[in-house]
Amino acid sequence: MNSRIVLERCDELAAISALPDGLIERTYLTVEHKSANATVAQWLTDAGLHAIWQDAAGNVCGRLEGERPGLPVLLLGSHLDTVPQAGRYDGILGVLIAIEVVARIKKSGRTLPFALEVVGFGDEEGTRFGATLLGSRALVGTWDPQWWRLTDADGASLREAFAAFGLDPDAITRAARRPEDLVGYLEAHIEQGPILEQRDRALGLVTSIAGARRMLITVTGRAAHAGTPYAARRDALAGASEAILAVESLAPGLGLIATVGRIGAQPGAVNVVAGSTTFSLDVRAASDEARDAGLEKLLAELKAICARRRLSLSVEHTHAAETVYCDPALKATLAQGVIATGDDDPLELFSPAGHDAMAIASLTRVGMLFIRCAGGVSHHPEESVREDDVALAIDAMHAAVLSLAESYEPYEPETARATG
Amino acid sequence: MNSRIVLERCDELAAISALPDGLIERTYLTVEHKSANATVAQWLTDAGLHAIWQDAAGNVCGRLEGERPGLPVLLLGSHLDTVPQAGRYDGILGVLIAIEVVARIKKSGRTLPFALEVVGFGDEEGTRFGATLLGSRALVGTWDPQWWRLTDADGASLREAFAAFGLDPDAITRAARRPEDLVGYLEAHIEQGPILEQRDRALGLVTSIAGARRMLITVTGRAAHAGTPYAARRDALAGASEAILAVESLAPGLGLIATVGRIGAQPGAVNVVAGSTTFSLDVRAASDEARDAGLEKLLAELKAICARRRLSLSVEHTHAAETVYCDPALKATLAQGVIATGDDDPLELFSPAGHDAMAIASLTRVGMLFIRCAGGVSHHPEESVREDDVALAIDAMHAAVLSLAESYEPYEPETARATG
Repeated sequence: MNSRIVLERCDELAAISALPDGLIERTYLTVEHKSANATVAQWLTDAGLHAIWQDAAGNVCGRLEGERPGLPVLLLGSHLDTVPQAGRYDGILGVLIAIEVVARIKKSGRTLPFALEVVGFGDEEGTRFGATLLGSRALVGTWDPQWWRLTDADGASLREAFAAFGLDPDAITRAARRPEDLVGYLEAHIEQGPILEQRDRALGLVTSIAGARRMLITVTGRAAHAGTPYAARRDALAGASEAILAVESLAPGLGLIATVGRIGAQPGAVNVVAGSTTFSLDVRAASDEARDAGLEKLLAELKAICARRRLSLSVEHTHAAETVYCDPALKATLAQGVIATGDDDPLELFSPAGHDAMAIASLTRVGMLFIRCAGGVSHHPEESVREDDVALAIDAMHAAVLSLAESYEPYEPETARATG
Repeated sequence: MNSRIVLERCDELAAISALPDGLIERTYLTVEHKSANATVAQWLTDAGLHAIWQDAAGNVCGRLEGERPGLPVLLLGSHLDTVPQAGRYDGILGVLIAIEVVARIKKSGRTLPFALEVVGFGDEEGTRFGATLLGSRALVGTWDPQWWRLTDADGASLREAFAAFGLDPDAITRAARRPEDLVGYLEAHIEQGPILEQRDRALGLVTSIAGARRMLITVTGRAAHAGTPYAARRDALAGASEAILAVESLAPGLGLIATVGRIGAQPGAVNVVAGSTTFSLDVRAASDEARDAGLEKLLAELKAICARRRLSLSVEHTHAAETVYCDPALKATLAQGVIATGDDDPLELFSPAGHDAMAIASLTRVGMLFIRCAGGVSHHPEESVREDDVALAIDAMHAAVLSLAESYEPYEPETARATG
């Protein structure tokens, strides 16, 4: 069974880790990254690909030519890096499914009207240098020279890490692809959410990848002695707590997925009522319009909560990314793939989490297939998938690639960019 | 009017500050401390006291002898130091009222069967070195030699600060008094709460000074990607927020004054659901029994909240102080004083905040008089009192001292310590 091989390879990569005791951490430009690339390159070799290389950004690639050499390429891939104390499937599973799909096509002897490439991105999570999607942004050609000065926890700069890894920072633009050389990009990924499980589906079609908006919210009251009775308090932390609970309770009804992950109270003394409290807010939705409309209502509610408590609330917007829409034609192609596995009416859902496809959509059209994961748990050692779901994902992706080959007409990148 | 002088002196001391723009900060063993002591010493001189000195801990003192020199002494006082961005009455007002009371008795020519001393403690707030009540603990003789190594924000040790102030650290025990030399300790202080204002009273009798219990509470869930849907989350910060709101809503019904002043979420990233959140809890009540019983119920509720959210809750107890009870006889004496001002049925209340009297109760019996402050606001520039309330406080304290003199029998310290 190909699914068994894929899961065994997930286990094998999980063992390439900077952490002891079976915990997984594999970050950009580390010895673990080098080792994972070498391992994946061997599997690409075993799959019989025509060319295997590491690109100028440290992404590992393998190419199967189409009917003739040099045709535009359909990219299949995901990332090989992890967060700290990660699961073993986020990203990795998509790379290994891509290898299996290309191996199956190679083995069948069938040639396609486009080339296929597997890409294992070196950085998507941003764990080491803070900035995310470094691998796919190098491929897209949107590498920001400011990033060279980013440093890791040990003070090593991204530029230094490139050199230490054996890469030439000045050659980074060589990792960039041209739109006219591409047919599109397909990515399989665990859902990182419980919707497929709740709906009893193995696979789902991604409609869009949510662009997050992030902000810092500061609730201001008045610092006071811990002996101060409640009636006299204007407790910023109590107000922030009510606001955080309101975020949790109101977000679903507003079509939002919202997260408060960081908080601090000032002056921050055990025996002083907080005079101010600042917390982060990350908001995502199926579309930018839905997100912004929901956010406006949410912030109005938070302000009302603070006003009732004689507190003020201020918002500092720190980040806004546009939602990326998957290409309708590639979504239809992936739907054909899912239907071929026996699911007549594939479920569509949006991705609240960012993915490599998000960066690649600025270069070529993208399609994403989600795979059920247990309990929606991700970025955690308990992350898990079913072997039969993985088998279905390989089958669906394989069928989608063949379906795309059958209907293939040389792709017009300009149109794709308009919808991307 | 004596009350006018007292308020003008509060303003004069407020100008002795380490902060610009009218903000007040005056901390232990600083140039501001030295200047405040000199100013207060001048006022003690103006009051005609027999002896004025700075003790071995930097407390400023003035003594009016009784019917003959060397009699046991009734201490009257409070502290002269402040928190950062303080009000101008917390502590200071009690020292200045004490000066007025002693001045009035001196002026009347009346001699008492005990001596009177005014004490202006150099440290109660603990702003500079973290440890509180340093002035009164030196007077009590419970100075901890470990404190010498405490450092301020600039790295100066308490020992170095002593030397810089012109004090001899090795002479600290000379600040300690003996119980047999004392009649008791009376302190006037702003309420730092709104109860007197709510009950329309100028003055109140303190029954006890609450001993705080402090702890760190850690709520543990599971870190997860910000894209994770709500159903799959075990969000420690959302759980902590619900717990903090429950502290606020349940504490009054449990007879507690509870404060959460510090909080942090881990991993603390904008785009990661918190895996754990730790917050502080400070709990006070009228008695240790009420506090501990209320706390037990409160923690049970917090655990239930966490259990419903599939979170765990752990408690690390970091501090516990016993409640200090004011001496019934001194409370009755202060009641006589308040009744003399026209309030036939003085209100009794406990102090959720700590005071110098708390330390001194381990040496001699203590009594405390609370003075109404606007809105219960303290430790803040908006701290304010009414001049007519200050006049009543001076009258009440004066009447109480005379009442004590009339009923005075040489005090038995052993009994006092049993009730203290």
